[in-house]
Amino acid sequence: MKLYGDHESGNCYKIRLLLGHLDRSYEWVDVDILARETRTPQFLDKNPNGRVPVVELDDGNHLAESNAILWYLARGTDFLPAQPFDQAKTLEWLFFEQYSHEPYIATSRFWIHYLDAREQYADKLAEKREPGYHALRVMERHLAGRPFFVGPRMTIADVALYAYTHVAGEGDFDLGGFPAVRSWLDRVAAVPGHVPMRRRSRSAAGGAKPAR
Amino acid sequence: MKLYGDHESGNCYKIRLLLGHLDRSYEWVDVDILARETRTPQFLDKNPNGRVPVVELDDGNHLAESNAILWYLARGTDFLPAQPFDQAKTLEWLFFEQYSHEPYIATSRFWIHYLDAREQYADKLAEKREPGYHALRVMERHLAGRPFFVGPRMTIADVALYAYTHVAGEGDFDLGGFPAVRSWLDRVAAVPGHVPMRRRSRSAAGGAKPAR
Repeated sequence: MKLYGDHESGNCYKIRLLLGHLDRSYEWVDVDILARETRTPQFLDKNPNGRVPVVELDDGNHLAESNAILWYLARGTDFLPAQPFDQAKTLEWLFFEQYSHEPYIATSRFWIHYLDAREQYADKLAEKREPGYHALRVMERHLAGRPFFVGPRMTIADVALYAYTHVAGEGDFDLGGFPAVRSWLDRVAAVPGHVPMRRRSRSAAGGAKPAR
Repeated sequence: MKLYGDHESGNCYKIRLLLGHLDRSYEWVDVDILARETRTPQFLDKNPNGRVPVVELDDGNHLAESNAILWYLARGTDFLPAQPFDQAKTLEWLFFEQYSHEPYIATSRFWIHYLDAREQYADKLAEKREPGYHALRVMERHLAGRPFFVGPRMTIADVALYAYTHVAGEGDFDLGGFPAVRSWLDRVAAVPGHVPMRRRSRSAAGGAKPAR
């Protein structure tokens, strides 16, 4: 299996994190978003929406959308619950992540950490604060008294929400007021098989800005 | 089963449309978004994220996120493909809908059609144009030569994308340049069991603005 991705992207990290837990091998193919490598005809044949991650399966088929990939890879493993209602709750959190969390928390991080453009995006960043903190409050309420998002062990709901929550500070979100979220982050990172997010060294780009 | 929703919401219409095709009965419970009925303690017990639709199952459990609800209700029917890879492609389109389509096409419609505030949101509407048309181009490319999004018959991927695409004009998106999308809209509406979106009469509110 090939995984087309960008190491600074939390959406790509989700797939690496799950594959680490599943101990599955894969070939990583680096795709440079800022160089518009996701918009070449060759890449658009893999994903017409022009986004990473994309996986290329051994039969040559492609699958996009990080959370659809998580679902596909987790089938038949402990990372997708067996019962239909628990599966539906897992999907509920995956859609929550893409609609109510990622557009605020990940996008803020993208502008601040990835583009190093906090001043340029000041107005847009301000608009992201309240909905981003709303998402964190929803998570905090749910995690109070629960070890993981769905059921007694880590599932792909945790994988998806961990990816951008554990670097929320890089988007200027303060997790200080979210003790249940912080405990859950620690629990997720302590599950055997955990792999950290890989980061491109800023100095490798020859300047203060990230390489891409 | 109870369905908590708002008749002007395409996300709620998705569930009504699938239930129509499945010929399943349910109790509709009207929730007034603009009156903040989705943010009462009673509603937040059903969905801590404070959004419709929410379904209440016969065992008292609640499920939120329109596309997670579609997936749960479609299991075991022709509206969810049987093969795992086809299921994953269906999920891929469901996540595309929530991340790359709904935030642009549905949100534009919300400001124009629902709030009647085209002038107030002029700058934000302008930002929504290009990504909204990008989503339509992705759909057009995929539907050229295909009857439906995944496989030979209608699935929940079509249900989800039909909901806001068929009223894209109410958000000032012109489908004139998207013949494959328009043919697909006709095909979806012609499948037996189709139910139209219900609309609240503007005159019922006693003025030019929609009732909510």
